[in-house]
Amino acid sequence: MKLGFVSAIFPELGLEEVLRFASEEDFSCVELMCWPPGRTERRYAGVMHIDVASFGADDAKNIHDLLECHDVSISGLGYYPNALSADPAESEVAIAHIRKVIDAAAALGVRLVNTFAGRNPALSVEANWPRFLEVWRPLIRQADERGVRIAFEHCPMLFTGDEWPGGKNLATSPALWRRMFDDIPNRNFGLNFDPSHFVWQQMDYIAPIYEFRERIFHVHAKDARIDRKALDDHGVLAYPKLWHTPKIPGLGDVRWGAFFGALSDISYDGPVAIEVEDRAFEGSLDKRRESLVISRRYLLQFLTG
Amino acid sequence: MKLGFVSAIFPELGLEEVLRFASEEDFSCVELMCWPPGRTERRYAGVMHIDVASFGADDAKNIHDLLECHDVSISGLGYYPNALSADPAESEVAIAHIRKVIDAAAALGVRLVNTFAGRNPALSVEANWPRFLEVWRPLIRQADERGVRIAFEHCPMLFTGDEWPGGKNLATSPALWRRMFDDIPNRNFGLNFDPSHFVWQQMDYIAPIYEFRERIFHVHAKDARIDRKALDDHGVLAYPKLWHTPKIPGLGDVRWGAFFGALSDISYDGPVAIEVEDRAFEGSLDKRRESLVISRRYLLQFLTG
Amino acid sequence: MKLGFVSAIFPELGLEEVLRFASEEDFSCVELMCWPPGRTERRYAGVMHIDVASFGADDAKNIHDLLECHDVSISGLGYYPNALSADPAESEVAIAHIRKVIDAAAALGVRLVNTFAGRNPALSVEANWPRFLEVWRPLIRQADERGVRIAFEHCPMLFTGDEWPGGKNLATSPALWRRMFDDIPNRNFGLNFDPSHFVWQQMDYIAPIYEFRERIFHVHAKDARIDRKALDDHGVLAYPKLWHTPKIPGLGDVRWGAFFGALSDISYDGPVAIEVEDRAFEGSLDKRRESLVISRRYLLQFLTG
Amino acid sequence: MKLGFVSAIFPELGLEEVLRFASEEDFSCVELMCWPPGRTERRYAGVMHIDVASFGADDAKNIHDLLECHDVSISGLGYYPNALSADPAESEVAIAHIRKVIDAAAALGVRLVNTFAGRNPALSVEANWPRFLEVWRPLIRQADERGVRIAFEHCPMLFTGDEWPGGKNLATSPALWRRMFDDIPNRNFGLNFDPSHFVWQQMDYIAPIYEFRERIFHVHAKDARIDRKALDDHGVLAYPKLWHTPKIPGLGDVRWGAFFGALSDISYDGPVAIEVEDRAFEGSLDKRRESLVISRRYLLQFLTG
Amino acid sequence: MKLGFVSAIFPELGLEEVLRFASEEDFSCVELMCWPPGRTERRYAGVMHIDVASFGADDAKNIHDLLECHDVSISGLGYYPNALSADPAESEVAIAHIRKVIDAAAALGVRLVNTFAGRNPALSVEANWPRFLEVWRPLIRQADERGVRIAFEHCPMLFTGDEWPGGKNLATSPALWRRMFDDIPNRNFGLNFDPSHFVWQQMDYIAPIYEFRERIFHVHAKDARIDRKALDDHGVLAYPKLWHTPKIPGLGDVRWGAFFGALSDISYDGPVAIEVEDRAFEGSLDKRRESLVISRRYLLQFLTG
Amino acid sequence: MKLGFVSAIFPELGLEEVLRFASEEDFSCVELMCWPPGRTERRYAGVMHIDVASFGADDAKNIHDLLECHDVSISGLGYYPNALSADPAESEVAIAHIRKVIDAAAALGVRLVNTFAGRNPALSVEANWPRFLEVWRPLIRQADERGVRIAFEHCPMLFTGDEWPGGKNLATSPALWRRMFDDIPNRNFGLNFDPSHFVWQQMDYIAPIYEFRERIFHVHAKDARIDRKALDDHGVLAYPKLWHTPKIPGLGDVRWGAFFGALSDISYDGPVAIEVEDRAFEGSLDKRRESLVISRRYLLQFLTG
Repeated sequence: MKLGFVSAIFPELGLEEVLRFASEEDFSCVELMCWPPGRTERRYAGVMHIDVASFGADDAKNIHDLLECHDVSISGLGYYPNALSADPAESEVAIAHIRKVIDAAAALGVRLVNTFAGRNPALSVEANWPRFLEVWRPLIRQADERGVRIAFEHCPMLFTGDEWPGGKNLATSPALWRRMFDDIPNRNFGLNFDPSHFVWQQMDYIAPIYEFRERIFHVHAKDARIDRKALDDHGVLAYPKLWHTPKIPGLGDVRWGAFFGALSDISYDGPVAIEVEDRAFEGSLDKRRESLVISRRYLLQFLTG
Repeated sequence: MKLGFVSAIFPELGLEEVLRFASEEDFSCVELMCWPPGRTERRYAGVMHIDVASFGADDAKNIHDLLECHDVSISGLGYYPNALSADPAESEVAIAHIRKVIDAAAALGVRLVNTFAGRNPALSVEANWPRFLEVWRPLIRQADERGVRIAFEHCPMLFTGDEWPGGKNLATSPALWRRMFDDIPNRNFGLNFDPSHFVWQQMDYIAPIYEFRERIFHVHAKDARIDRKALDDHGVLAYPKLWHTPKIPGLGDVRWGAFFGALSDISYDGPVAIEVEDRAFEGSLDKRRESLVISRRYLLQFLTG
Repeated sequence: MKLGFVSAIFPELGLEEVLRFASEEDFSCVELMCWPPGRTERRYAGVMHIDVASFGADDAKNIHDLLECHDVSISGLGYYPNALSADPAESEVAIAHIRKVIDAAAALGVRLVNTFAGRNPALSVEANWPRFLEVWRPLIRQADERGVRIAFEHCPMLFTGDEWPGGKNLATSPALWRRMFDDIPNRNFGLNFDPSHFVWQQMDYIAPIYEFRERIFHVHAKDARIDRKALDDHGVLAYPKLWHTPKIPGLGDVRWGAFFGALSDISYDGPVAIEVEDRAFEGSLDKRRESLVISRRYLLQFLTG
Repeated sequence: MKLGFVSAIFPELGLEEVLRFASEEDFSCVELMCWPPGRTERRYAGVMHIDVASFGADDAKNIHDLLECHDVSISGLGYYPNALSADPAESEVAIAHIRKVIDAAAALGVRLVNTFAGRNPALSVEANWPRFLEVWRPLIRQADERGVRIAFEHCPMLFTGDEWPGGKNLATSPALWRRMFDDIPNRNFGLNFDPSHFVWQQMDYIAPIYEFRERIFHVHAKDARIDRKALDDHGVLAYPKLWHTPKIPGLGDVRWGAFFGALSDISYDGPVAIEVEDRAFEGSLDKRRESLVISRRYLLQFLTG
Repeated sequence: MKLGFVSAIFPELGLEEVLRFASEEDFSCVELMCWPPGRTERRYAGVMHIDVASFGADDAKNIHDLLECHDVSISGLGYYPNALSADPAESEVAIAHIRKVIDAAAALGVRLVNTFAGRNPALSVEANWPRFLEVWRPLIRQADERGVRIAFEHCPMLFTGDEWPGGKNLATSPALWRRMFDDIPNRNFGLNFDPSHFVWQQMDYIAPIYEFRERIFHVHAKDARIDRKALDDHGVLAYPKLWHTPKIPGLGDVRWGAFFGALSDISYDGPVAIEVEDRAFEGSLDKRRESLVISRRYLLQFLTG
Repeated sequence: MKLGFVSAIFPELGLEEVLRFASEEDFSCVELMCWPPGRTERRYAGVMHIDVASFGADDAKNIHDLLECHDVSISGLGYYPNALSADPAESEVAIAHIRKVIDAAAALGVRLVNTFAGRNPALSVEANWPRFLEVWRPLIRQADERGVRIAFEHCPMLFTGDEWPGGKNLATSPALWRRMFDDIPNRNFGLNFDPSHFVWQQMDYIAPIYEFRERIFHVHAKDARIDRKALDDHGVLAYPKLWHTPKIPGLGDVRWGAFFGALSDISYDGPVAIEVEDRAFEGSLDKRRESLVISRRYLLQFLTG
């Protein structure tokens, strides 16, 4: 496996700075954020380390030079919008930009785009499904034609009242994955697996590694801790952020030895990108750098880098 | 404590038949359902063993004669509508009928009405709150004036898509109870405590017994089992009925010894009404009768009857 | 469900005495042992309460009179030999006698014969399989033709060096049950389910209740306790009796609430026969009677009798 | 086993009333308290149902008539003073009265005296030991000569500041029992085993049943619950009553199935006396009667009465 | 956080040797022991790396030069006597020397003194309290005036008969901390938090991190293992050393990921000093050095150094 | 302790290449395989890094030169045949070759030979015992005379039908070790302790470390994971490979902190050799190298290298 990180944690750094940090701290890859230019309200969203909107032939060359210079590879391009938003403008922008990320990935030879299925949070899963197929069938076809794979991260995107009730992402459980891969069986369509989402949804994250072994294209290393006392007060139906906290790997409830044991069993040999959404480490650029250094040290006991 | 049952399980029996069964099987009390006449769609709803709509002076006398004859008491009057329904007609009917149940309780000298807070399931807890206060303040005042207590059962009323997203009942967790009793501090306002709802919401049901000791007016003895394999497939954000099953006491996950240990510690001496919503026992009137007999036998190891 | 017991615990009582005890202690059924006449070495084997070897028209009549007189029914006929014994004589005797038990069951209108698959303990499961099919296909066909069902108890019959290495019964696990029912799909072929065997084989006994719901014809209520300290000394590969002990229900590790919860979910409505193999209660006829009385009292909290 | 209760819970009843209650509620035995006349400060102490101080030939006859009339037996005579008190007067009174209890037991043919080892709570175990041997060797010799057995209950008698630091009873753990039985190997010297003390001392109560099988002369059925939240606040070094609560059987943390499973394994066939020290049931004579009725019902699922 | 160690483990090394070791093994800080000159009987006590008794202007300068030279900082000055000893001489020496440690800390600009509350072990907590306030109010005032903080380590100092019954330190539990900080609310008064003491007192060490977030000035990284078999033999009332063993971090029962997760949540950014009291590593100076190297490697997976 | 690895994982490398790898990756020792020349069928068997069959004076010198050059030591010589094979030829070859390994160890000054007791898998433990003593008494005597120690690895060597029923190794549990060391009390006879075998035999691996502290001569660091779902399907009597998987340290169920905590408590200071039998890492020489690098990194948090 290749140990890297998600570049969203460094919104203020340019691409070269991100790669230099990766290189200095011995990360072998980075998932590079490709949001469109402009502001965003959502935490961790809106970061752009590759501008795919105006991606030209020179860009690929320049990026490859930088990568070579720092001896770092790209684990995947990342863009996590809500392509199924109830707001047509938001949905259109997302779809159009996903197409550009796919094209840039093809141009760069990266072959993997990480994203969200998206969801209209006001509607049930069933009510979202037709629109999900309508939006994603052509996108996955486009990716497939360019030799690029699409990986859905399975975060429910439901934390507080902002995303209530349904959250902004459909692809949240093995039950829905089965349905999703039945309806769109394309082999270039898969998952960006992150065990932390399963921790707080109170699901086993080991068995699905075996069941979906052909679909795991990318791994996010993020942890989460259930706050037992708060859960006792609120219950699982309350906003999830009331009773769980995202943490860096090793400081939460994920059993990482079992997790990497299972990944080794399925011969997973792709990227493992540390994703930092732990507020304890967001106070400064230094703290965020530090969070990656600690996380890497923690994970190196289970995998090569 | 006084062991009884909820009469909703016997929609086809008349009041006397219900009381005769209670007497024959040595139950000392019954929670009598007081739905308005007419059909209902919801399972377990719509049952009427006392017609409070046209409740007269004779009715109280007749019912007391029946109770005396069978040596059974009424643990409380039960009517569980959605007084906060988004449908004004449904809400009005519910409120008006709750008033009648309170009056009938006063007339009968029963002093306890069990019900639901209700909720507009399309809105968040916060968005429901003003309407909750508007509806319930006068109702609790009315009850208080008649020396009747109101007890909310804390079932989330969220099982499948029918009640999605918010469920049809607000009063679901200790966090919300605190807020509720802060906003309406009337001492005749309390809880119909049922540990099964806490099991599947994954909350501790022991500590709240101590915290809300002054508020526990009635107890429902129902059990629930979390289906671990189904939860692994769906996660806590999916419809709760996909991953849990209501059961009769002793056949689910509630630790009843600890539960009654805590009730004894707070000197709870009120009714414990077995509530059967276990589909395994709904096939026939005989099976439903049997479910109460088994449940009673199970519970008698922890309390007197 | 109908609560009864296995008559093997009363080798010194005649049929009428067994039925009288059942009646006096409010058991509604008994599994009657039908071993051939003559001595046996195996503990709990060799008991005969119905002599099927010389079963005539009068016998059925007489037995029915006795059953009626004591208001007790037969849950099944029981005969647990090793039909796959490596000793041709033992195997032949077993097969021939099973045929007679089937015929007697048909004559009595009992419709259920409980037995073992048997096994040559010196051979692996695979090596036993052809002989298993050869022996059991015709027996199950015979039963099917007479409207009688065959239920295999799934005890591994491996306790000490006497049955080492393979034990004397093949039908020990869900994996083998699947193969068995695939190879002999007859619907009159099923299981006499006993959770205690799963306890010490360290298998879940709840999920198989759902998977094999159509195959559970009879239930044995026996418990078992794993002796953790002894297991630490010997390990699971040592003789199982070195590290586990059969117990009566409630005094071992079976979670009976969960067990009967699952049985209720599949609408199991057949017999539950208490099987006493707990040496703590074998010292005298009185102790054995007592063991059934306690077991019944324990189980009545979960089921009707 | 024989199910009974400890008479200390009924200080206001006379012997005949105690026996009548036992008889009416189907208890087969009672442990009768034999404190000397006069007041006591300690909760549960000072109760006298047999006055051994002035025990004459007629007394034995009268008591046997009462027992026969009510068909109840005496499980043992109980007197639990502190024979090792630092106060010479208290110690002398205790020793002298223990001698009388032994003599009365012999006269009654009861053959068992339940008591405490006692302890000077200001001194360590080691510092108490010489005095322990000095006091108990002659007492056990006296009992032995009269064919009476002495059973120590192993309650630490350390609850609050009153008994701090060492508690008023030495015989609290298997480690000390070994030493005790090594130093005084008399076979008429043993234990009145009560699993509740082990629960809060956080010790296994199953393995000692096997190790001390020859020494278990009497069993107290009492339960206890550790209050996890209070223990988190105070720790095991704080006064034990700050973080645990005595309960009646079934409402605490004792695993009674395992407990009686082990007792059955060692062929224990003596008395099991319910000891009520659960404040939830001490409010009135009726509540105390009720506590015994519930406890009996709970225990009858594991043993005969 | 800054990873360091407690210098008490190196009684035979001089200050410069300690700092050189710290520097060579990449520790960023050291808690320096400041016992008065002279022998001591207590294990880990009596070590002096800074002689505060005769601390002059030059000393501060010299020490700062050494620190700068080795690029190591002082996490705090450490002196852990029993200022509440029943022996007036011992108490006076302790109090007088604590004053000197405070002054030296101020002179060095270290701003933190780690110590024990102390206790008269023969008296209860309540009986110690007046003397505790009498001794510590002026000491904390002195420290406050000099801008120095006082941190109590919460070890019960109760291991064997030597410290029986009450142990030599009062500040052992959250319940007592609340009382302590209520009585002496000075903001320069806090805790030297060590999770190992909570492990064997069987208390949660996570929730107090949040509750006392403003009071955690220093952290000791020590581990402890409860010996389950020994606890079963002796119980929690026996000398704690009979059933638990101090270990270096990672070789005991502390869940370090959860611990550092909570510390990160409260933005703790102070020192984490490894405290070695693991007899397995005390055989030689080399073993003790090794113990720090392993501990550091273990801890670096959770924090920066 | 000294961290190394078992050379069997590198069948295609020569001795110098093995030592160079060890040196480059900072392993301080290697257990060198000494199988006789020629093919073998068993996985992980047949590897020869030292040819003891023709071991001469020069060989010792050459090997010592290599060791010195790479600064690596030999943790032990390893040869794991079945000296108790039912096939006399196989047994004879094994015994004869063990003698040569002992002699080579003596010549090299290594002082430790790791091997298996062996077993005739068709026979019970008891039936193997006489032959076990007959074979091993003289071998252990020979080793003892040469100052060499014999350490048995306690793998049951029972995975699939190939080794059924008894497995190819007798020395599998503490119960058998006690018997073994009673029958052959030689102090140069001991164990090559590997916790992974205890994991799947469901035995505690901590207590035996204390009990057999004088017998632990060598440690294998291998992990194993029980596949709970597969165990539920097959049970502990089925072939062990159906329900467990060998893993590298940290990716299985061994609690390594507790394991090394116990080893440190007994002052174990010998070799810890990583043994890779994890198929997830066997795909290539690079993967096998990588598996050792990760394992070493994992283990270094608990011990020095």
